[in-house]
Amino acid sequence: MSPVVRIGVVGLGTVGSGVVRLLAQSADHIERHAGRPIVVERAVVRDPAKDRGLPLAADRISSDIRDISRNPDISIGVLLVGGLEPARSMMIDLLEHGKDVVTANKALLAEHGPELFELARRKGRSIAFEAAVAGGIPIVAAISECLAANRIESIRGILNGTSNFILTRMEEDGADYADVLRLAQSEGYAEADPSMDVDGTDATQKLAILAHLAFGTWVPWDEIPRTGIDGLDLDLLNYAGELGYRIRLVAVARRGDGRLALRVSPALVRKGTPLAETRGAYNAVSIVGDAVGRMFFHGLGAGEMPTASAVVADIIDMVVGRSAITFRTTGMLDVSTGAAGAASAAMQLGGVESHERHFLRIHAADRPGVLARITGILGEHGISIASVIQHAGGEATGDADAVGAAAGTVPLVIMTHACSPAAIVRATTAIDASDVVAGRSICLPVLEE
Amino acid sequence: MSPVVRIGVVGLGTVGSGVVRLLAQSADHIERHAGRPIVVERAVVRDPAKDRGLPLAADRISSDIRDISRNPDISIGVLLVGGLEPARSMMIDLLEHGKDVVTANKALLAEHGPELFELARRKGRSIAFEAAVAGGIPIVAAISECLAANRIESIRGILNGTSNFILTRMEEDGADYADVLRLAQSEGYAEADPSMDVDGTDATQKLAILAHLAFGTWVPWDEIPRTGIDGLDLDLLNYAGELGYRIRLVAVARRGDGRLALRVSPALVRKGTPLAETRGAYNAVSIVGDAVGRMFFHGLGAGEMPTASAVVADIIDMVVGRSAITFRTTGMLDVSTGAAGAASAAMQLGGVESHERHFLRIHAADRPGVLARITGILGEHGISIASVIQHAGGEATGDADAVGAAAGTVPLVIMTHACSPAAIVRATTAIDASDVVAGRSICLPVLEE
Repeated sequence: MSPVVRIGVVGLGTVGSGVVRLLAQSADHIERHAGRPIVVERAVVRDPAKDRGLPLAADRISSDIRDISRNPDISIGVLLVGGLEPARSMMIDLLEHGKDVVTANKALLAEHGPELFELARRKGRSIAFEAAVAGGIPIVAAISECLAANRIESIRGILNGTSNFILTRMEEDGADYADVLRLAQSEGYAEADPSMDVDGTDATQKLAILAHLAFGTWVPWDEIPRTGIDGLDLDLLNYAGELGYRIRLVAVARRGDGRLALRVSPALVRKGTPLAETRGAYNAVSIVGDAVGRMFFHGLGAGEMPTASAVVADIIDMVVGRSAITFRTTGMLDVSTGAAGAASAAMQLGGVESHERHFLRIHAADRPGVLARITGILGEHGISIASVIQHAGGEATGDADAVGAAAGTVPLVIMTHACSPAAIVRATTAIDASDVVAGRSICLPVLEE
Repeated sequence: MSPVVRIGVVGLGTVGSGVVRLLAQSADHIERHAGRPIVVERAVVRDPAKDRGLPLAADRISSDIRDISRNPDISIGVLLVGGLEPARSMMIDLLEHGKDVVTANKALLAEHGPELFELARRKGRSIAFEAAVAGGIPIVAAISECLAANRIESIRGILNGTSNFILTRMEEDGADYADVLRLAQSEGYAEADPSMDVDGTDATQKLAILAHLAFGTWVPWDEIPRTGIDGLDLDLLNYAGELGYRIRLVAVARRGDGRLALRVSPALVRKGTPLAETRGAYNAVSIVGDAVGRMFFHGLGAGEMPTASAVVADIIDMVVGRSAITFRTTGMLDVSTGAAGAASAAMQLGGVESHERHFLRIHAADRPGVLARITGILGEHGISIASVIQHAGGEATGDADAVGAAAGTVPLVIMTHACSPAAIVRATTAIDASDVVAGRSICLPVLEE
């Protein structure tokens, strides 16, 4: 029998507990894949006294990261705490003391990835992070290994399960955003403070990680244009539905003309297409490679065992040596190193600039001539109209008051033909500044398959 | 600069040509992933004189496998000829002479996998075969690496692009099987001799390979129950459509109670579900793992560049060393070796035994009392009926004569409630032996999501 591999787990929240359970319940199976038994030698948590009902002896749980980082029997640190600190210091401590690190912390990598990857390389260690993006979907391996022969042309992903759960329930139950958010919180699909999920931060951090792998460019996540679902209401979903679309929070990356265009925003996706049919807490990623064409992946993007599945796969990869190779080859793509870096550095970052159709919802004054005025403004900006929905006030999908419109207005929904994002922003600004509307218009891109 | 990796390509058909083109057109990109330049040192084909318009000098093309196997500068043989011989002898020659082998030949692996894998292990070499199953979809890597922490519970796949192209066109164009087959041949989606595709052989061989990876059991592919699409007609597709289903050729593997159930057959899949929405030459695989839940993969399953994408990814994996690790860990699952083998050997092979709904199409005599008689036979076998379609003769979806029914019969379509496969086989046999039907009934399983 090969010697036992001893690992340390930092954090026994949902994912950490799942990892401990999965390692125990599938020990035989995992040993066959790893070639060696894998045991949790030590777990480090804030409160070691808390009973978590895990298959882990109490004397193996403590509160000091040094119990893992200074333990010479432990070769792999599994960092499963969220947020930036103390996660960052803990990862540095683990790497400094010669541990390979497996993590699911996307915020940490999106914020401090270059520093941490550089430290790992200097120490001859590896970082594996399949679980940081799209939970159980092996999208990190797909991009960095399986599609390595391809130039990735575009990525579109539903990367935040909380947002997708909320949008799906709003649509299916005809419920308001606030009610569904409360439901999501009570069912464990949303945190007590859901802002990182619903404002698009989480999806944007994941997109930054995928863009690094796919395009060899490290993009500061907070430079990526980002809109969350927190400004949406049920009427928007219903109007989109009338036109044959659903609304999803979609992360988009596209390469073209030496530019890398990135964006996270709610978008209209046509019913029946894979992203539109991604429901509830599921995640999905659609990737176009120049050789392979369009690939689509769908699976659970969060939750105890789906995420543990990805973490344990990374632990196995560490044990057998695949992670070290992949971490090294991924490093060849890094901005800071060599020819790829030069190519990448030349790639400009920007919002998505290609022409797309747009969906506009305007609270228009309920008096004659207003539609002519609004369509006139669009025309002045070179934007032509594919379809218009204007129901009698409050008739279609609820009372206009309910969506925050001022009295005396009616919702006007316009689907444009393809136009430049710059033109639609200028036109929408002009419409909102005019005297025929009340409140801010909402403008969403339309993603055609 | 690291030294150049020299490879030999055996076969310059569709996939071989794609590999040569992809290696040339994406040389820089591929070198970044591999860490070293990869060049085609030699290609071996039956007819070296033929002009293929490839970026490969004529003096690098010859007809003797020994030009690769005996060339000490070549480390990897890329075997891209189909069929069993001379492919098998060529692979043996390559392995015997110390070459690692990348191949897309699923028939060869399904037929001779154990012998070839054993030889490779004895010689300290590796075989990589991502392209052998589902073309560009990285399903081999997903099962053997990314989902390694999971016990795989079931696999469902659309693994034969030709069959799926034919079924999709029949359904969408309302065209007959024979006409669509001719179209598929003229458009390059079907071979001149399409029998291996349409009779289910190709999908079954791919299923045997996936089952080996997922369940650690080597299953002789010709022991897997197999039905192709060659017995289907347009009326069947139309009746399924009336009931809200499409027909797809689905490969199924399911583990349960120490049994491994495998089957390839046309099946009804509900419209809107991922397998039903897999169209044309696309492939799809749905996998359920005990930790990750249901994962779904969709992409191009064949064609020059999608398949080349998978082959070149394998070549890169060989160069960086990932393939050697994966080939070794996959070997730990092998029936012939150790504890996993013992566990696997205990797993009995059989058809899918769990209860499913079934779709029956019967050519019933057009006279009173016949429906009562047929439903009576079903009842005697404990099978209850969910719905029945019986249109006036020839009214619904075409002339009954057109689907091979005898004169004086009407098509009768029955959807059963869930019943055992054994019961439905006995009932169908009894119905076909009765005097109220003409010709053989068709019975297809219904896959619910």
